[in-house]
Order: sequence, then structure tokens, then C-alpha cells
Amino acid sequence: MNNDEFSLSLRVYIEDTDAGGIVFYANYLKYMERARTEFIRKIGVELRAGLEQNISYVVHSLNIKYLRSAKLDDLISVTAAIVRVGKTYLEFDQRVVDINGNTLVTAQVKVACVSLDTGKPRVLDEKLARAISTV
Amino acid sequence: MNNDEFSLSLRVYIEDTDAGGIVFYANYLKYMERARTEFIRKIGVELRAGLEQNISYVVHSLNIKYLRSAKLDDLISVTAAIVRVGKTYLEFDQRVVDINGNTLVTAQVKVACVSLDTGKPRVLDEKLARAISTV
Amino acid sequence: MNNDEFSLSLRVYIEDTDAGGIVFYANYLKYMERARTEFIRKIGVELRAGLEQNISYVVHSLNIKYLRSAKLDDLISVTAAIVRVGKTYLEFDQRVVDINGNTLVTAQVKVACVSLDTGKPRVLDEKLARAISTV
Amino acid sequence: MNNDEFSLSLRVYIEDTDAGGIVFYANYLKYMERARTEFIRKIGVELRAGLEQNISYVVHSLNIKYLRSAKLDDLISVTAAIVRVGKTYLEFDQRVVDINGNTLVTAQVKVACVSLDTGKPRVLDEKLARAISTV
Repeated sequence: MNNDEFSLSLRVYIEDTDAGGIVFYANYLKYMERARTEFIRKIGVELRAGLEQNISYVVHSLNIKYLRSAKLDDLISVTAAIVRVGKTYLEFDQRVVDINGNTLVTAQVKVACVSLDTGKPRVLDEKLARAISTV
Repeated sequence: MNNDEFSLSLRVYIEDTDAGGIVFYANYLKYMERARTEFIRKIGVELRAGLEQNISYVVHSLNIKYLRSAKLDDLISVTAAIVRVGKTYLEFDQRVVDINGNTLVTAQVKVACVSLDTGKPRVLDEKLARAISTV
Repeated sequence: MNNDEFSLSLRVYIEDTDAGGIVFYANYLKYMERARTEFIRKIGVELRAGLEQNISYVVHSLNIKYLRSAKLDDLISVTAAIVRVGKTYLEFDQRVVDINGNTLVTAQVKVACVSLDTGKPRVLDEKLARAISTV
Repeated sequence: MNNDEFSLSLRVYIEDTDAGGIVFYANYLKYMERARTEFIRKIGVELRAGLEQNISYVVHSLNIKYLRSAKLDDLISVTAAIVRVGKTYLEFDQRVVDINGNTLVTAQVKVACVSLDTGKPRVLDEKLARAISTV
């Protein structure tokens, strides 16, 4: 696999900040989910098409470290690299990096593939599994 | 109708605020939707049960005026009163009020009843229409 | 003025959607604020620099009409055009448009310039006023 | 310390859900922050008063496990218990529990006390440290 370069550029908007003047801690999870989604899209898989086939992805667990804060108007990058592929899940390493290359946030995120209607784990969408194996 | 008294008390949390130190303007729409939902629940209608019957409610249009700002830790009230009942929609008057009775925000919100799958307007859920007529 | 062309492209992410399968109505206000911010940035004004000089912008009032719904994975555009410049405020016309050119949402938004510390109206930041007059 | 009983009841609203029909994973962090805030308030400390004295609290790191999903209209409880008190930080154990007592989400959250202006760690607000020691 050679996917460690995927990166999404984002702008920090007022909606992302809080009264402490920095990005609200839950909002980095939004940024990371955007990066995972664009990474998956890049290899040919769209989330909505999955939902229409009863396939959904839910986060199973994550660890996150907040090292530095992003602020209003900052341009940041969010990376997403798949570090493990299970039968029913993917594990991602992700980072939020500022424009000078400083790491702001790091996270390990385990995402499970589930049936939309029951919420039960299911084997990875074949199209996704195939796409990942060729990354 | 005598529903103009419905009011929901809320606390302003960090998640609601922005770098300007006040509640982010879009978040008052969340507060207002919470108040409408609790008002509807009080008269016996739950949103999820509706979704399971292909009934959904979407906001058709709204006017909102921001008079004063709510801040972190503030305890506020959000009112919801039905001012018009159409075949396929409801119109609400809503206010956000601070603990001293000052009006912070006012809004008129038109909510349409739609079919969840098609998004097309449909007559109001019978249970809801009946409940409203007896408020 | 010839500013009616400003448009920001956005992707709809999971964070933007709700259990009805569409973009949550308050989130269009986030999209519109992003477009206003980028429009202002394009003419040379940054929000954070303003905050550091005790200048803030708050929405005074808005009217919004929801015509069609955006959904997960949709690529949409958000426009921002200044239609009136007051001593202490700006008025914007904004639209959310889908990839086929269908208008999804329209809004008129009045934004006031205030002192960050007191929240009181103040004359428009000179730099902004000058930039707008030359658009 | 005998603080393991603190619990905040919450309703799941449309704003919290996503197109998968469940609470969006980042929003549990909002719930947990609300519970921590109310716990701190209960022992006599308000966040805004802190900000006015240049004292802020930021999340340093967290681990979270998503076991089951909360859905629209669910009534849930969020617990907050302090499990470690450092010179400059607090560690919380938190859980989201449904109305039948099933654990939906568990998390360990480390919160650092920082100076609002510089973002640098500082010793815990004395009032907070004293209040915690007597919990």
C-alpha cells in the first residue's frame, strides 16, 4: 500500500471555532471524516451509493491527541492513511497539519462496515476492498 | 388554539459558541428545532415514529431577527407557538429569551410535511393534525 | 458593483446531513457564512485580523427559502453578492445551487459590523468599505 | 472522591443525527463536554467566569469506543467522573448510556487547564482544585 500521501486542504471557518478562540475539539473529527471520505472517493467509492445498497460505515473507536490549536482563517491539511484492513473494518492514521507543517492533531480511527438497517458488522464492501488492495 | 406558552429551557455550551464569544448564528436554528420537536412530542407525536412511516418534516422557509447575543453558560428559553395550520404545513412563531425576559431572537418558521422517500409535500400526518386541533 | 459572480464550491459531508437523509436546515447557514467569508477574503479582508482589532461581524437578520434538498456527496455552489452597503452593515443575496444549476436555497442576509467587546454597532471597517467600493 | 455518580440526561435531536440514521460520531464529544461542564458547574465553577480571568480548559487527548448507536428521539444519560487530578490537568471517565442502562459509548478524556491568551498549560484554577478535592 502506498496511500500515506492522501491529504485534504481545509479552511477554518467561524462555525468551527468556539468561545476559546480555537477550533472546538469535536470539530477535528469532522475534518478527519471529510479526509477519509475524499480518500475513499478518490479510489472510486461513494458513501451515498453505499447507503442505497444498505452499506454504511461507522467509527468503532478512536484515539486522538490535540497538540496545538487551529484558529479562525487557518488553512490546514488533514491526512488519511489506511494502516490495517480487516474483514469488516479499516484502520486509519490521520493528522491535522498547519500551513508550516506543524502537526496539530493526530488520531488512529477504526471504521467498521455495517449493514445500514441492522447496524450489524458485515464484510467490507467488495468494491472498496478491491480498490484498497490496489492502492 | 392556546399553545403560545410552550417553552423549552436550554443551556448554552461551548459547542454553541464561536470565536466572537457568542452563540453562532446557525445554532439558534438548532435551539428552535429542539423547541418545535418537544412541543410536538408534548402533544403526542414523535419524529422517529414518523420517519418509520415515511413521514418527515422539513423547513420550507424562515425569517429570523437576531436582537441580542446569548453567551457561554447562559440559561435561555425557546418558545414555539403554532400560528397557522395548512393542509401540508405548519407555521410557527418562535422566540429565544434570556433569563431576565429579554428577547434575543425572533423567528417565523414554516414547516412542511413531506414523504421521506420522495421529498414531496403530503397532507399533515393525521395524528399530528388531530393533536394540534385540540391544543 | 459587479460582485454577483462570487461562488464557492462545497462538498456535502456526513456531518451536514440528518436522519431525514438530507442536509440539516441550519447547516445551509454554515455554507452561506463560508461563502461570505471567502468573498470578503478575496477582496482582502480576514476575519481574525478584524477580531484582533475589536471588529466583529454578526448577522442581524435573514430570510431563507428551502426549495430543494442537498444530499450526501453532492457537490454544490454557494453564491454571495452584496446588494446594499450601509454605514454599519452589509446586505447579501445568497443562493445554494446544485451541479445542474438548480437553485436549492435562497437567502437575504443582513450582516452588521460591531465592536467585539461591547457588541454595539460601529461603522464598517474602513479597509472593508474601501475594498467593497471598488468591487 | 465520590463523584462517579454525576450524570446528565439528554435528548437526541435531528441536529445530532446523520444520513445513517444515528448520532454522528463527533456529536458524542459534544454530549460529553456538556456533562463535564455541568459537573464542574455543580461544584461551583463556571466556564465563562474562567475565560474572563484568562483561564480556559482544552482537551489534551481522548480515547473513545462506540459500542451501540443512539437514535433520533432517544433519551440518554452522559456520565462524568474525575479519575485523576494533575497539577495542570484532569482526567475523566465518561459513558453514554441509554434508557435501559445499556452503555453506548465509553471514553477517557484528559482536559488541560491553559491560559486563554497564550494557550500554554497553567496550574488548575485554585477554585476548581479546591472544589474537586472536596467532592
